Amino acid sequence: MSYKVELKNKINRANFLPDRIKEANVLAIERILSVEPVLVDIDTALNVIPGMTKHMILHAGPPIDWERMCDPMKRAIRGALIFEGLADDDESAHDLLKNRKITLSPNHHHDAVGPMTGIISSSMPVIVTKDLNSGSKVYSSFNEGGGKVLWFGSFGKETLVRLQWLRDVFGPVMKRVIVRSGGISIWNVLAQGIQMGDECHNRHTASTNLFLKNIVEHLVSIGISSDLTIQVYRFIAGNSHFFLNITMSACKLAMDAASDINCSTVVTAMARNGTDFGVRISGLGNKWFIAPSPLLKDALYNPGYGFNDGAPDIGDSSIIETMGLGGFAIAAAPAMASFAGGGFTESLNITREMGQITLTKNQKFAIPVLDFEGAPTGIDIRKVVETGISPSINSAVVHKSSGAGQIGAGISKAPYECFEKALLAFGKKYRLAA
Amino acid sequence: MSYKVELKNKINRANFLPDRIKEANVLAIERILSVEPVLVDIDTALNVIPGMTKHMILHAGPPIDWERMCDPMKRAIRGALIFEGLADDDESAHDLLKNRKITLSPNHHHDAVGPMTGIISSSMPVIVTKDLNSGSKVYSSFNEGGGKVLWFGSFGKETLVRLQWLRDVFGPVMKRVIVRSGGISIWNVLAQGIQMGDECHNRHTASTNLFLKNIVEHLVSIGISSDLTIQVYRFIAGNSHFFLNITMSACKLAMDAASDINCSTVVTAMARNGTDFGVRISGLGNKWFIAPSPLLKDALYNPGYGFNDGAPDIGDSSIIETMGLGGFAIAAAPAMASFAGGGFTESLNITREMGQITLTKNQKFAIPVLDFEGAPTGIDIRKVVETGISPSINSAVVHKSSGAGQIGAGISKAPYECFEKALLAFGKKYRLAA
Repeated sequence: MSYKVELKNKINRANFLPDRIKEANVLAIERILSVEPVLVDIDTALNVIPGMTKHMILHAGPPIDWERMCDPMKRAIRGALIFEGLADDDESAHDLLKNRKITLSPNHHHDAVGPMTGIISSSMPVIVTKDLNSGSKVYSSFNEGGGKVLWFGSFGKETLVRLQWLRDVFGPVMKRVIVRSGGISIWNVLAQGIQMGDECHNRHTASTNLFLKNIVEHLVSIGISSDLTIQVYRFIAGNSHFFLNITMSACKLAMDAASDINCSTVVTAMARNGTDFGVRISGLGNKWFIAPSPLLKDALYNPGYGFNDGAPDIGDSSIIETMGLGGFAIAAAPAMASFAGGGFTESLNITREMGQITLTKNQKFAIPVLDFEGAPTGIDIRKVVETGISPSINSAVVHKSSGAGQIGAGISKAPYECFEKALLAFGKKYRLAA
Repeated sequence: MSYKVELKNKINRANFLPDRIKEANVLAIERILSVEPVLVDIDTALNVIPGMTKHMILHAGPPIDWERMCDPMKRAIRGALIFEGLADDDESAHDLLKNRKITLSPNHHHDAVGPMTGIISSSMPVIVTKDLNSGSKVYSSFNEGGGKVLWFGSFGKETLVRLQWLRDVFGPVMKRVIVRSGGISIWNVLAQGIQMGDECHNRHTASTNLFLKNIVEHLVSIGISSDLTIQVYRFIAGNSHFFLNITMSACKLAMDAASDINCSTVVTAMARNGTDFGVRISGLGNKWFIAPSPLLKDALYNPGYGFNDGAPDIGDSSIIETMGLGGFAIAAAPAMASFAGGGFTESLNITREMGQITLTKNQKFAIPVLDFEGAPTGIDIRKVVETGISPSINSAVVHKSSGAGQIGAGISKAPYECFEKALLAFGKKYRLAA
């Protein structure tokens, strides 16, 4: 590490760069804080996601070939092909993929995000989130809930039934509800949620309730039967993670706003595909800096499962930590202290530690138990490399091979290696390295 | 105070009593914890409240004559008489009261509770809460919300309109909703609420959302128009205190279960009428031990108002603290830390201090920031007298004379004198005093 520290010192010692990095990072933070993400519409992936085609499947994390994908992601992709009618069964789906008949592409390359496997296929309904400030849009799938679901790398008949219902029933109803509402301010929901014990990644209990509170009036007003109203209501009310995908879309909007700023050392994305962990840096464009995705050391497993059963960390949801929520704001969610392994005090420590690798406190997300200090936001690769503190991510664990879906939840640490590589590349690009 | 400590020591030194007090208090705590309060019905006060008559007004706190009542309570009572059609205007209402044509009686003497002025009149719709364990019932008004409202000692045309709507529209709809739901478990809502930043007295934000979540499906299913559905929904969703009265009814059920246990030193009620503060003790039956109701020293006032504008502390809502929530559980609501004057740490201190005057921790209400320690429950008069620590109550302030309604909120301390008096009476009854 001393070599990296030396490198960092070189960066700081350069004649012009300290000021230019500082200026660039101030701008990056300004842009992150200026975003006003609003859930404005529901549409079909094919209609709205840039570059989407009928023979394309979007997935979580940095780019990866079919062969190198982990089992849960492969399983979810085969499921999506069956859902799309492109394959009749698992085997024919596998043939399509093996023979490169399907384009696999990361959500992040299409203004999209998805949790865990993150699968989005062409006919899926997607949420459309817009930054009122810039007009930019980001897309995400609806959260499928629990059980055999694609996002947890699980697939069965019930998965198909639910996906069809989401496409044919839930999506069209929600489109009318969201349009009628005039849009739901996502920061508004999360700012309240964080006062009510959500860290806004693994705990969205309050935020999902607040979202419901925002839409009930519209759901009741669009003239559908009470049976259908209840069906739609129950689907959301029965899934405390429902708001997760919406949060992710907002966080990606915020971090995209900070992208491509010359000289900025701010991390604009962290994402995992279950094989690789990748980070993107504002001053380094769209390049991914990759390391093997870690297994979750600090996790609580469902009965009968343990460390050796889990796939490596997976999902685009770490965009939430990139934006200063989730693991970075874990002190706001004492009910999640068991994840941290040391009770509430350990949660406080994690949030304080994340303060050491970030550039600002986001007062929109005031953490009550820290006397309303803002959530630590804007990871600086220099600070990660210098302190050796890796970003802490609140995550879930899926089974590595059986298709059992979720088997646990806990904390993962972004690989230090990604930040080292990024800092070296930064030095090279800006001609700072020896 | 040393005299009281001596008295307390005498109690402890008595040959048979320490064990008998201990046994009695163990039983009291068992009974408090055994209660399962469920909101089961809505009805009209006259139909269900024991002893209620058309010419009776129920009020908060211990018994008090018309003349000694504070202005806000008098104002609310006059308003209720106009609402009931017993008086045409303020003046004729006042004549009725002056000439003793109206019976004034405490809620607590009629299995009822009401927040602040606590006014219940005969035609008002009331919530019916039942202890599934014993079958006992307790009643409370619906929370009227903000503005010119009886519970804040304010009255105007809009008050009347709202009370009529509550009686003619809201009450009948809610009756159908609650009956259709099969009952709402109140502890269930509060146990979740306390994980989401409610201390369950001055903050019921999460609990009210959770209540809504419980009833939406039924509200949508009873076959009323969508306009009416929205009207009812908005009334609840627009008032984060809506669940307060429901919480109070549950807490009274729990504390009534612990009443009248021979030799028990557990406080079974604390209540204020804006003039007097009264407490009841299990081993001393229904007798009230009275002291002047305190002004709120630690309060946040609305702009333009201050300490000198407030009426003394008022309301039956301190039944919540008697049951170990509200001020006793303030550590669970860091968003309310400003009340405590010293930020989050001061909130922690208050909850810890309340642990010194109580007999148990109620694990149903696990406080996340205390690593899920239960809320301190079961005030022992001996501990209050011995430590000099008075129960801490999260309260609101109403204007003492202008009818302006709520002008602030903050913390009040139960008068030490009530507990002294109670302990002396306890000594006398059980022949322990010199």
